[in-house]
Amino acid sequence: MEKIPILRMGRFLLVTIQVDLYDRLAENLESDLVHMVRKTGARGVLIDISAVSIIDSFMGRILGNIAMMTKVLDAETVVVGMQPAVAITLIELGLPLKGVHSALNVERGMELLRSKIALQDGESQDDDIYHSIE
Amino acid sequence: MEKIPILRMGRFLLVTIQVDLYDRLAENLESDLVHMVRKTGARGVLIDISAVSIIDSFMGRILGNIAMMTKVLDAETVVVGMQPAVAITLIELGLPLKGVHSALNVERGMELLRSKIALQDGESQDDDIYHSIE
Repeated sequence: MEKIPILRMGRFLLVTIQVDLYDRLAENLESDLVHMVRKTGARGVLIDISAVSIIDSFMGRILGNIAMMTKVLDAETVVVGMQPAVAITLIELGLPLKGVHSALNVERGMELLRSKIALQDGESQDDDIYHSIE
Repeated sequence: MEKIPILRMGRFLLVTIQVDLYDRLAENLESDLVHMVRKTGARGVLIDISAVSIIDSFMGRILGNIAMMTKVLDAETVVVGMQPAVAITLIELGLPLKGVHSALNVERGMELLRSKIALQDGESQDDDIYHSIE
């Protein structure tokens, strides 16, 4: 199968990675995700990697790319379900997954995204209040 | 990878099928799902098959099995994201996916599950009202 399905859940998109990402699959995923964020106006992307037992620098870069691409479209990316061994490997390899947030599972990832969105929206609301007080 | 990840989303469990199901993988999925339903007390299971382009009698039976197994644990199963070609094949092969509900996408699947749960809970509430009037 050449595509990884992207599921829409309200304001968020959910992707579960179950197969090893090779070049073309990763490119398709990046492209599909960016198009979906634009099409749906999603505010967050959740990437579940609970089935991933080995992470390498290629996959680390793909996750970082996705986070940066979605960020410029105003959507945060959260990686969820990382196995302990993967976390150890990431740090030992010196791959800190720049710009990628992480959470223990999908539910906590959604909470994190909700709080980030509330914060962003809250900030703009605060600005409004500030202006109205003036 | 020998396991398909099962994601918990509130009262529901979500599974996306991205790889061809062979015997052992299917058995693991059935077993994992039943254990997860019991452990989490989930009321519904969503199985996304949007990445599945070919469905055969084996996979049809697996989906039917999962629906029956979860049903006895008081959880409904909804298959979501079926491709049009798969729907055609299912009917032409005479595989009606007995006991399996279906919905266009995850969001509609969740709505369907919510309405089913509300109906079930509503029925028991009605009973309570009936008794209290008595």
